Amino acid sequence: MKQVEHIGIAVRSLQQANPLYERMLGLKAYKTEEVASEGVITAFYQVGETKIELLEATRPDSPIAKFIDSRGEGIHHIAYGVDDILAEMDRLRKEGFRLLNEQPKPGADNKLVCFVHPKDAGGVLVELCQEQPA
Amino acid sequence: MKQVEHIGIAVRSLQQANPLYERMLGLKAYKTEEVASEGVITAFYQVGETKIELLEATRPDSPIAKFIDSRGEGIHHIAYGVDDILAEMDRLRKEGFRLLNEQPKPGADNKLVCFVHPKDAGGVLVELCQEQPA
Repeated sequence: MKQVEHIGIAVRSLQQANPLYERMLGLKAYKTEEVASEGVITAFYQVGETKIELLEATRPDSPIAKFIDSRGEGIHHIAYGVDDILAEMDRLRKEGFRLLNEQPKPGADNKLVCFVHPKDAGGVLVELCQEQPA
Repeated sequence: MKQVEHIGIAVRSLQQANPLYERMLGLKAYKTEEVASEGVITAFYQVGETKIELLEATRPDSPIAKFIDSRGEGIHHIAYGVDDILAEMDRLRKEGFRLLNEQPKPGADNKLVCFVHPKDAGGVLVELCQEQPA
């Protein structure tokens, strides 16, 4: 785990959340991207080496829609950057952590990602992410 | 806002959470510190430029005890590092954000801190923190 690559924050509406984050962070989103497989549209802000990733659901069965239904808007996950996601997944499995996907899958921002079960990670949804080779 | 200085995570017990975080992050807490004024004891892990700050309540009326009672263990706040906390507080007030303390107060890790009202910050408890002059 080499850095906090991003923090994912569930929002009801990017149209409302983007002006708020621009005023709060004092900067503009540098990218908006839809991840159809996850049912989300995202906006990214760069703060130091970490990105703030706002997540809006694009359909009612999106994990983000379900999260907001049960907990309201707020912090959804922490993503740690790794150099070798397969090695890190293997290390975590051996340490007894359950993974939510057994193979890395494509995420936003050209990453390969894997999620760790929040019940094994102290109530936090943890993502591993590795930059994909070009 | 120059970086994500730390992410605060509420835990029931550092004695249980520390071994879990050591296995997950693959590193040891570099510091444990009590902040009596906030009713918490903290453990810090350094991941890149960001710290993971585990927070255990030391009394039932601690904000962390109340958070865990209502939401369970999980991510409690995001702290952004700033160079000049008074200037940043002033900027946020002018942008319409309500602050939870009108003057900076001492936090863990030799910081001056201020919290932004979660209702103004998209459901996220946001902390500003500035390294104190020695």
